[in-house]
Amino acid sequence: MKNAIGREIPERIGDRALAPFAGAFATTHAGPKAARHQKTAPRVDDKLLPSIDAAIEACGLSDGMTISFHHSFRDGDRLINQVLDACASRGIKDLRLFPTALFPVHEPVIGHIENGTVSRIEGSMNGPVGAFVSQGGKLAEPAVLRSHGARWRAVEAGNVEIDVAFIAAPQADRYGNANGIRGKTPCGTISFCAVDAQYARKTVLVTNDLAPYPVHPMEIQQGWADVVVEVDEIGDPGSIVSGTLQLTKSPTRLRIARLTAEAVKASGCLVDGFSFQGGAGGISLAVTKFLGDEMERAGIVGSFGMGGGTKLLVDLLHRGLIRTILEGQAFDLDAIASLREDAGHVLIDPGFYANYDSRGCATYMLDAAFLGATEVDLDFNVNVNTHSDGLLLHGIGGHQDVAAGAAMTMITVPTLRGRIPVIVDQVTTVTTPGEVVDVIVTERGIAVNPRRDDLKERFAAAGLPVRPLEDLRHEAEKQVRPIARPVFGDEVVALIEWRDGTVIDAVRKVEGWT
Amino acid sequence: MKNAIGREIPERIGDRALAPFAGAFATTHAGPKAARHQKTAPRVDDKLLPSIDAAIEACGLSDGMTISFHHSFRDGDRLINQVLDACASRGIKDLRLFPTALFPVHEPVIGHIENGTVSRIEGSMNGPVGAFVSQGGKLAEPAVLRSHGARWRAVEAGNVEIDVAFIAAPQADRYGNANGIRGKTPCGTISFCAVDAQYARKTVLVTNDLAPYPVHPMEIQQGWADVVVEVDEIGDPGSIVSGTLQLTKSPTRLRIARLTAEAVKASGCLVDGFSFQGGAGGISLAVTKFLGDEMERAGIVGSFGMGGGTKLLVDLLHRGLIRTILEGQAFDLDAIASLREDAGHVLIDPGFYANYDSRGCATYMLDAAFLGATEVDLDFNVNVNTHSDGLLLHGIGGHQDVAAGAAMTMITVPTLRGRIPVIVDQVTTVTTPGEVVDVIVTERGIAVNPRRDDLKERFAAAGLPVRPLEDLRHEAEKQVRPIARPVFGDEVVALIEWRDGTVIDAVRKVEGWT
Repeated sequence: MKNAIGREIPERIGDRALAPFAGAFATTHAGPKAARHQKTAPRVDDKLLPSIDAAIEACGLSDGMTISFHHSFRDGDRLINQVLDACASRGIKDLRLFPTALFPVHEPVIGHIENGTVSRIEGSMNGPVGAFVSQGGKLAEPAVLRSHGARWRAVEAGNVEIDVAFIAAPQADRYGNANGIRGKTPCGTISFCAVDAQYARKTVLVTNDLAPYPVHPMEIQQGWADVVVEVDEIGDPGSIVSGTLQLTKSPTRLRIARLTAEAVKASGCLVDGFSFQGGAGGISLAVTKFLGDEMERAGIVGSFGMGGGTKLLVDLLHRGLIRTILEGQAFDLDAIASLREDAGHVLIDPGFYANYDSRGCATYMLDAAFLGATEVDLDFNVNVNTHSDGLLLHGIGGHQDVAAGAAMTMITVPTLRGRIPVIVDQVTTVTTPGEVVDVIVTERGIAVNPRRDDLKERFAAAGLPVRPLEDLRHEAEKQVRPIARPVFGDEVVALIEWRDGTVIDAVRKVEGWT
Repeated sequence: MKNAIGREIPERIGDRALAPFAGAFATTHAGPKAARHQKTAPRVDDKLLPSIDAAIEACGLSDGMTISFHHSFRDGDRLINQVLDACASRGIKDLRLFPTALFPVHEPVIGHIENGTVSRIEGSMNGPVGAFVSQGGKLAEPAVLRSHGARWRAVEAGNVEIDVAFIAAPQADRYGNANGIRGKTPCGTISFCAVDAQYARKTVLVTNDLAPYPVHPMEIQQGWADVVVEVDEIGDPGSIVSGTLQLTKSPTRLRIARLTAEAVKASGCLVDGFSFQGGAGGISLAVTKFLGDEMERAGIVGSFGMGGGTKLLVDLLHRGLIRTILEGQAFDLDAIASLREDAGHVLIDPGFYANYDSRGCATYMLDAAFLGATEVDLDFNVNVNTHSDGLLLHGIGGHQDVAAGAAMTMITVPTLRGRIPVIVDQVTTVTTPGEVVDVIVTERGIAVNPRRDDLKERFAAAGLPVRPLEDLRHEAEKQVRPIARPVFGDEVVALIEWRDGTVIDAVRKVEGWT
């Protein structure tokens, strides 16, 4: 069947009937949420078990169950591989892996798919596992990708039932309180898994720093945790920081950042109380810096910035240019230190951040957001999941949530990457529909969604280079080098859910390239 | 029917079959919790309505519904009366009032019972409303009293479904984030209502200090709130502090406090990592002070203290004698200021504090607790709800939760109050069963529950005056003045629930006195 933006999606996957995307805010849910498990705690003061294996045993983890993880260590995570190895050693089969995201460090997951330990994945896949899956990698069902907010929603809605949540906890006490901002190897917030901890049949905290009761802040609470395990290693904070966390030095990207900051100013929203989502990526970081300097010049104090938190965002807080950082995910060590030290740096969870089915989420309060893309198309649709080679190499992150929420959503992209075009007729995969994208800023000019003539006028009045998206595309085309095009098979290897649980696109198997 | 401690309780109330108390930890619950309401938020950034009346209208509040409130302003609350007046003006009838607690300031509730606005109450009643109810005051069903933890549990279990939660919020933003520690009239934590906010069909924040987004800490979150209302007055923090928050000057009470502190020391638990619940009441405050001094002398650092928080508890934190205060309820302005300023002063909610059906609660981590009583009996049962005149004048608070949780539960009482005996054959009402009471400390000596011979030996070895409870009672009896005894009718006016939802006692109508 076709959804509201014309993408062909399957009607069902196994027993599950799929709901087609109907529009960014078209779906309304009512009725009860999923019920959490009631459990009477025995009066014990210690939940410590000696090993991950003992925890697996105690939780009755067995074939076909669903296990979940957070990704706050990003490419430095050491937990998922340990748990899967332990499951494989026990001969457990057909697990559904439900991480918030996988990274290159999780390449061993491929082996666990091949040996039958893992047969389904619901979660973002950055790098090799995604590449494997998109080349037909043997999963029993298509993978399901969700935004941060959508994953939270899906658990609360009962779309995904978690049997055992394994939570890497940089600091935990024996009774089950934990956070990610303290301990030997802090990774920032671990609240991505707060909903898992509340809904899972069993919740296991795995820590490398068992601290005296009561560990606080309690991102994970004692009332949710069944088991605590101490291990040598849960993750390497050094690998949280990736290449995308450096301020860009590229003249093209600096120009995009400069234009973006000027567009924000021209839009009229850069006044006291201004709020924005920056995030990682060289351009976003540069925009954050430029806006901060502009706010300082103009004497403007913003209400809040959202991250992932970075040194640059923390710098705005320290300079008094924003009152608050709402932090769902720390992207560097400065942000983690600030979470410990700055009262205005506030831990939030993905439900607070972006849940479509709450009574209001933080992304709806954003004045402006600067987001990336692998591709954008002439309908302003954005792809962040696949590359032009068709391979599924990235997760959604908060892209959909922020784009849908911010009053002005700006996609900041070069028109070319390695002479491959970024602006295309039709994106390979729709992650975020053009309906919620307002502006595309490139080094060749700024394209404004026809829905937003108000912005177009303001930008033009400010002398900014407003240009039709087609023109930007056409101009870039001249420098494009010939590239191999993917040949897609019929098999659906992954579903891209919209934040309301409908399916916005399907990713098909890459059979080869021409 | 009779429950496990021989108290006669009704088999049912209306449609509801009552479960008899079976033992402090005899009941185990499994299966699903109640489901929360799913709701898709529209993308708005402002939930402000102009008045409480407008909120009542918007929430569709009508006859027979359940409305809830917190009691953090205690006798200074200004919200409950305002809301009930507004409901009465609209002609709404038969409301079930579900406050965490009522105080003397809520005497107008009596009028609203008489005029039919309120027909049921589930919640603690301190003072006139309780006296009215226990003299047969016209409720359609017996009132239900629960401990802090039991109320939270009851909501999560679906025992009480809330239609509209009205939450007095000392500081709130227009989007529904709120806390009790900031604003013009801070009252301490408002997390008593966090479970209400999450489960209610509609949640209304009523604030007298509308602050810019994002208000934090978010004790109440935007994702839970439907409506925000700004009013002139929600409560008077000056009335949070009651007479029971003064350090006692009575030689009798000072002796009890001194004996209690000595008994703690003799018990062997006063070592590094020591944890205790102090709370209000002149004796508890004095014990807190004496223990702090002893810890300082001995170079001991405790892990945590629980309150309600007071100046004396904060003082221990500031002196480095305890690492943490876990704060469910602030009892004075120093505690509120400390919540804003001290990183080691941690806001918790009643679920974290005391939920029987969580996977572990904070009271289970207590080494020692010093609690009050109106009466104790020879089975070590404790009454905190009724007086010897039979009138229901007090709530349960955290009494049951702490007594059941602490490794050593000490009841600190004088043997006489105004020549009325405190140690009796059988308490008028059982709030907390002798099963979870270890020690009764009086000015005449220390009685130890026969279950705890280990403590008895340690106390005796330390030269403390350990005496049979009967002897203490007998000795005090000589000074008792003759008092009028209540004549109880058959009508049950209130049920005392145990923290697991079973009924531990029934309070019967006082027909008169002889």
